[in-house]
Amino acid sequence: MLDELREAAARQRQARTLALLKLGTKRLLSARGEMNGVPLARDLIERLDLLDDAQLDAFFDHLAHDLDPDPATVLRCAQAYAAQPTAQHLIALTEAAESPRQELLRRLNRSPGGTAAVLRLRRALLKRLPQRDDLLALSADLRHLLGSWFNPGFLKMKRVDWNSPAVLLEKLILHEAVHAIDGWDDLRRRLQPDRRCFAFFHPQLPDEPLIFVEVALLPEMPDAIAPLIQKDSTPLAPERFRVAAFYSISNCEPGLRGVSLGNFLIKQVAEQLQREWPRLKTFCTLSPLPGFAVWLRSAPDLAALPGLGRGVATRLQAAQQTLLDACGGDLDALHNPLRHAQLPEPAQAALTTLAAAYLGHVSTLPTGDPVARFHLDNGARLERLNPGGNMAPKGLRQAFGMMVNYLYDLDRIEASHDKFRRGTVARSRAVSALL
Amino acid sequence: MLDELREAAARQRQARTLALLKLGTKRLLSARGEMNGVPLARDLIERLDLLDDAQLDAFFDHLAHDLDPDPATVLRCAQAYAAQPTAQHLIALTEAAESPRQELLRRLNRSPGGTAAVLRLRRALLKRLPQRDDLLALSADLRHLLGSWFNPGFLKMKRVDWNSPAVLLEKLILHEAVHAIDGWDDLRRRLQPDRRCFAFFHPQLPDEPLIFVEVALLPEMPDAIAPLIQKDSTPLAPERFRVAAFYSISNCEPGLRGVSLGNFLIKQVAEQLQREWPRLKTFCTLSPLPGFAVWLRSAPDLAALPGLGRGVATRLQAAQQTLLDACGGDLDALHNPLRHAQLPEPAQAALTTLAAAYLGHVSTLPTGDPVARFHLDNGARLERLNPGGNMAPKGLRQAFGMMVNYLYDLDRIEASHDKFRRGTVARSRAVSALL
Amino acid sequence: MLDELREAAARQRQARTLALLKLGTKRLLSARGEMNGVPLARDLIERLDLLDDAQLDAFFDHLAHDLDPDPATVLRCAQAYAAQPTAQHLIALTEAAESPRQELLRRLNRSPGGTAAVLRLRRALLKRLPQRDDLLALSADLRHLLGSWFNPGFLKMKRVDWNSPAVLLEKLILHEAVHAIDGWDDLRRRLQPDRRCFAFFHPQLPDEPLIFVEVALLPEMPDAIAPLIQKDSTPLAPERFRVAAFYSISNCEPGLRGVSLGNFLIKQVAEQLQREWPRLKTFCTLSPLPGFAVWLRSAPDLAALPGLGRGVATRLQAAQQTLLDACGGDLDALHNPLRHAQLPEPAQAALTTLAAAYLGHVSTLPTGDPVARFHLDNGARLERLNPGGNMAPKGLRQAFGMMVNYLYDLDRIEASHDKFRRGTVARSRAVSALL
Amino acid sequence: MLDELREAAARQRQARTLALLKLGTKRLLSARGEMNGVPLARDLIERLDLLDDAQLDAFFDHLAHDLDPDPATVLRCAQAYAAQPTAQHLIALTEAAESPRQELLRRLNRSPGGTAAVLRLRRALLKRLPQRDDLLALSADLRHLLGSWFNPGFLKMKRVDWNSPAVLLEKLILHEAVHAIDGWDDLRRRLQPDRRCFAFFHPQLPDEPLIFVEVALLPEMPDAIAPLIQKDSTPLAPERFRVAAFYSISNCEPGLRGVSLGNFLIKQVAEQLQREWPRLKTFCTLSPLPGFAVWLRSAPDLAALPGLGRGVATRLQAAQQTLLDACGGDLDALHNPLRHAQLPEPAQAALTTLAAAYLGHVSTLPTGDPVARFHLDNGARLERLNPGGNMAPKGLRQAFGMMVNYLYDLDRIEASHDKFRRGTVARSRAVSALL
Repeated sequence: MLDELREAAARQRQARTLALLKLGTKRLLSARGEMNGVPLARDLIERLDLLDDAQLDAFFDHLAHDLDPDPATVLRCAQAYAAQPTAQHLIALTEAAESPRQELLRRLNRSPGGTAAVLRLRRALLKRLPQRDDLLALSADLRHLLGSWFNPGFLKMKRVDWNSPAVLLEKLILHEAVHAIDGWDDLRRRLQPDRRCFAFFHPQLPDEPLIFVEVALLPEMPDAIAPLIQKDSTPLAPERFRVAAFYSISNCEPGLRGVSLGNFLIKQVAEQLQREWPRLKTFCTLSPLPGFAVWLRSAPDLAALPGLGRGVATRLQAAQQTLLDACGGDLDALHNPLRHAQLPEPAQAALTTLAAAYLGHVSTLPTGDPVARFHLDNGARLERLNPGGNMAPKGLRQAFGMMVNYLYDLDRIEASHDKFRRGTVARSRAVSALL
Repeated sequence: MLDELREAAARQRQARTLALLKLGTKRLLSARGEMNGVPLARDLIERLDLLDDAQLDAFFDHLAHDLDPDPATVLRCAQAYAAQPTAQHLIALTEAAESPRQELLRRLNRSPGGTAAVLRLRRALLKRLPQRDDLLALSADLRHLLGSWFNPGFLKMKRVDWNSPAVLLEKLILHEAVHAIDGWDDLRRRLQPDRRCFAFFHPQLPDEPLIFVEVALLPEMPDAIAPLIQKDSTPLAPERFRVAAFYSISNCEPGLRGVSLGNFLIKQVAEQLQREWPRLKTFCTLSPLPGFAVWLRSAPDLAALPGLGRGVATRLQAAQQTLLDACGGDLDALHNPLRHAQLPEPAQAALTTLAAAYLGHVSTLPTGDPVARFHLDNGARLERLNPGGNMAPKGLRQAFGMMVNYLYDLDRIEASHDKFRRGTVARSRAVSALL
Repeated sequence: MLDELREAAARQRQARTLALLKLGTKRLLSARGEMNGVPLARDLIERLDLLDDAQLDAFFDHLAHDLDPDPATVLRCAQAYAAQPTAQHLIALTEAAESPRQELLRRLNRSPGGTAAVLRLRRALLKRLPQRDDLLALSADLRHLLGSWFNPGFLKMKRVDWNSPAVLLEKLILHEAVHAIDGWDDLRRRLQPDRRCFAFFHPQLPDEPLIFVEVALLPEMPDAIAPLIQKDSTPLAPERFRVAAFYSISNCEPGLRGVSLGNFLIKQVAEQLQREWPRLKTFCTLSPLPGFAVWLRSAPDLAALPGLGRGVATRLQAAQQTLLDACGGDLDALHNPLRHAQLPEPAQAALTTLAAAYLGHVSTLPTGDPVARFHLDNGARLERLNPGGNMAPKGLRQAFGMMVNYLYDLDRIEASHDKFRRGTVARSRAVSALL
Repeated sequence: MLDELREAAARQRQARTLALLKLGTKRLLSARGEMNGVPLARDLIERLDLLDDAQLDAFFDHLAHDLDPDPATVLRCAQAYAAQPTAQHLIALTEAAESPRQELLRRLNRSPGGTAAVLRLRRALLKRLPQRDDLLALSADLRHLLGSWFNPGFLKMKRVDWNSPAVLLEKLILHEAVHAIDGWDDLRRRLQPDRRCFAFFHPQLPDEPLIFVEVALLPEMPDAIAPLIQKDSTPLAPERFRVAAFYSISNCEPGLRGVSLGNFLIKQVAEQLQREWPRLKTFCTLSPLPGFAVWLRSAPDLAALPGLGRGVATRLQAAQQTLLDACGGDLDALHNPLRHAQLPEPAQAALTTLAAAYLGHVSTLPTGDPVARFHLDNGARLERLNPGGNMAPKGLRQAFGMMVNYLYDLDRIEASHDKFRRGTVARSRAVSALL
């Protein structure tokens, strides 16, 4: 009895909170909101930050269902435009077809903390998305706006080094996603004179790195990660810099999912390093291959890979068998560094061949390796496979220790990208020769 | 004969230039442009900057007609959405209804000088607009994007003073639109300790003021402009600041026409001054009345003014007659400062009454005084009329010397704005009493 | 034989190096050096940085003995000035009496890295000083110049916090001399919103903190150090700040020994905090008492303390006995935290009384506690004794756990300082009552 | 009677003011002043700023006579040092021989506005110096301290351009001493891309340029000033820069008289321009010759010039006669541009020869041309004479239109300087050939 009363009271509070929120969005979208929106937006943001999960669910319902374009109006405008495609009809159509929530979000953004608030909304939304198909259009609207606001032309690329504020460096330690930074001493090594770190910042969020990339300046293309992130290594003398190797790229802002930043960052960094060090000749990555082990353990039918000649298919199947034989049929055994080290040479070679096949034929599929797809779609070329490149537990588990160099040849980027979109992976002769 | 050959050659060159431009926009809109768009955008911007007027006309034709949404596709999507208003249908509709040129402009903006290039395009377009209705949708798209990018939340408000770079101050001298700045000494006076100047800047155009406002800090609400802009006046001691009077607001970027900035600037300045000087009690303007003389000379039928009681109408007609009699039927005579000064008291009073009628009843019409409409729509209140407030030639010509104080009472702004949108001008008792 | 040859060769090289250095100083001191000295100074600094210890010894000999004023000339000038104290005679005397090495050092300082080079020289000199009385005048000249260059009026006081560059924060960790900073997490706590850290910088050495002080903002005067430097404590809300407690002050630049900076830093910090937080009422320290244990273990004759009444002397002797009895005659036992904790109440009280006597009567002697002498000479007042204030090993070893609050009452600083110079310690009633 | 009373009262006030000042200096020099000097210094500076001229005279008397070293003490110390030149005796001597006012001024300098206050004192003192020999030692002490504080190693050289704050640019207009800047448009031309302006700043006075130099970047060594300062000239393209011509150097701070800054500024600017524009081959001046006309009108006995061969003397006397004949015996006629233009060729040549003689033989004398002495003592070489280089009234009046190029060859600067100090002017072959 008491419980029921309590529940009813809670429901009532919930309803009141939601009603106030809806009133807030309505006012912000009205003519008042157009002219005097900053205080209204500030107020709405404060309310949003106090919502619990259930209230936020309800607010997303409101955004997703009450602030859609009106189907009848859009249809009428579309018919008029189809009948007579004039500028006036098009203007009417454009207005009718845009969700009012886009204008709402733009007005939220006028308040000082608006951009950050919209990013928080997107983060909360993305968590719900897998269960909520009805929120997809709202998510698309958010992505569309954020893509316009976080346009690379508006972002500032800044170098991060040991002169940067501690509050910023701390965020790198927190967000490094590829090769975890093990405290301040580790970070310090990664900011020495033969290392570079660059990040994108938005003018509205000047202390928040959005994405950062770590680069090693080296005498030659690296084949293993361990030497690059060793804490006590001696910095290389600048006159020996010849290769810039991107060895880690990490997003810091989950609310920007789907907004392409990494591609632009890598190219802008490459251009800047090229200007600063004209003797740099090679821009490449040293990248993990996170999907390789899962794929190989799934016993794929190699003959069925797309675009494969018969001879190649036969050779790949042989390699698969060689490898299985070498580890007694249990690929998991190769996650053990000792067992891996005892692999006979032919089995090692078989592993490399299979990685080349995985990258060369699977990457063009949507299910392909995400890191490979990222770099190849950016226009990089598959340059070299490095067995034993990462013998740390994560490297063994994900890819039996294999690492990959992708080459960013700024003059060929467009061609390689086009090729990839048409289903072919740009690759070096050495990799081609493996198949 | 030779002329014909020359003409043909010119036509051919024209055609080739345009063909290259169209190719450039096509590539920038393709998948290539998505991933590797920065150099493509840079290239296109360089080409655009070399176009002559005829070529630019042709390019606008291309933007306006070849990059429209496809009517049939939009109609199909609108029908599907009308039948079943699901998220998927809405996403498809949103995509189909957005002009591809919007994406083109967003990609242009990724290049370092992109924002400035889009502003230049808009400036060129606005010049053509009066003759070209077919460019209206293109102009609306540009305004829409610029409105999103020049959102007040993204702008930085900065104080401009005598410590500002000369290169910036020079731009104020150039763009001041209300009371021309007569060289560096004049500017210097306007930047003394009892004057303020604030401007909005966009992070992408850090040296370009977008709009600026000039403020005088005074002991009381000003009734004439001359003392405010006198070069050799002595600055007021800060402990006597009680009123902040906005006496000039000027746009510097014509490409942003239709993007509301002045409203936000005035309110943000008022908030900042309030924080800095808690003893400031009044925020008002000292504004011109640019349409008053034209209206009065047009011999308007005062009885036909909207929302007027009969008694008031009669009194207004009497005032009109008084004034005409006083200047011998020739209102133009009042543009002469000497004749103006000889106006008998009843005629002076009649002039003020007529100004009150003009502001109180004409401003709500689209044809009303633009300055009045700006401030009243912002939520300001018509506070006081100041006959003889501007006896300079421009002031006499535009408004027979009349100036206006609009009051920004931050607590009543929303209410006044609502009132104005419903057709009523918020006004002080003193002004009401005139009618 | 061979050894002799080798030795002779080494002596020759040494001689050549030294001859070149002497030539360098001679040229820098000549008219050439006056007008074109920057390259000469740069060159000399480069040479100095390559010297080994023996060469540096020889260079100091040169500076100390070859660049003294000429005794005969000075005497002549002094006689002339004594006979007729005119301006001309005084100018001649001043010139004659200044060591030429002062001008040499000023000219060294014209080169970009000059100030840092002079500081390095002083550091090297200070190491030699205990063995070399003949270098005392050279050291005094260096101190004199550095005192003029590192005048507090030329220094910039800056707040150091978590937004400061890592390269600077690292130096705090390195130089903290009172309560060691245990890595970045510890540092981070000391830079939270209820902590302050301020440092002096010289414009010529903008990345080198010269001295820094750590301050805790607290609700009341602290009686123990542990809570102040606990890593995981929660920051105090700003509205509860009432007391600023200086709990650590550390020099970073040994080359500035004898140049008073700490005194000015503490007062400037107090002034700045007072402006920022008008509700701060108390500025005090929480200080160690590093000489107390040594003194007490030396079994001092308390009756012989200066300025002591007979009654007090008797009571102090009784306290001394009480304490000795409580620890079985072995004061060292009190360095053990467990034994210390078991001390009966009367022995605890005796310890405090003895500390009051130590501070009140020994501090005015040159052999007194250096921390006490620093704060008392600055004009602070001995405010409170805190037995058990520092139970860490160092605190027990140095002072049987005792800590001291010195109070900086900005209005009484001059009076307290004068008192101290006249041999009396300014103290609170509570401390006076102990004696 | 009443007047006498008034006078007595004024004398009494004067006496009281002075007594307070003396008390202030005494306290600042005491132990109190050492430890708590900042408020005392602030207070003393405030008092000083209120003094009238008579009071300031009295204060200078106090500084100059009451704060001298004590003759007897100095003599005793000098005798001890002469008997035994030990470090201890030297330290005692150094202390005794330094005027206590030096320490006073150093302590004044600890207060925030101290440096500016000391500069104000020096300015006031320099005005009195011509009449007051007794203030010479005080002036020397001030110069000594300011020389140490305004050491070039402590100064920041900054480029001044059209991006600099208006408040700074205004000071250039005010202080330009060689070729007056005629308002903001003139200044703007001097800050165009083919012009440079550099100034020295002291960290303690960050908004006050101490001295600035104006440089033109040119294709060849300039022979006339008019084209360099013409307002509407077109900037030269950077790829054509070959010569950097210093055409104006102006001090802004009279209080620094006797502290050498120009020499260091010119050389530092030359080094920086050389780094920035490696194709610059020549660093020279285009300088006035301010003493030439006065000297020539004084009908000097040319045969008596120092270091002149007989043949040369005869030729110079002939040139003198040629010139006199050409202007009808009245050299003043040549101040008239029209008369000057009518001068026959041989008389023109005679003028140039006489200028060469003036520069080559008079400059080494203390009475020589100050501009020539400045550059030659800096180590520049007399490179070329330019008759008609400055036909503006001031140029005709000072030097009959003659201008001079001095060449700064950074590799030969030391040698030329030495030569000049030994009485010989370094000059180009072309100039030598004139004699």
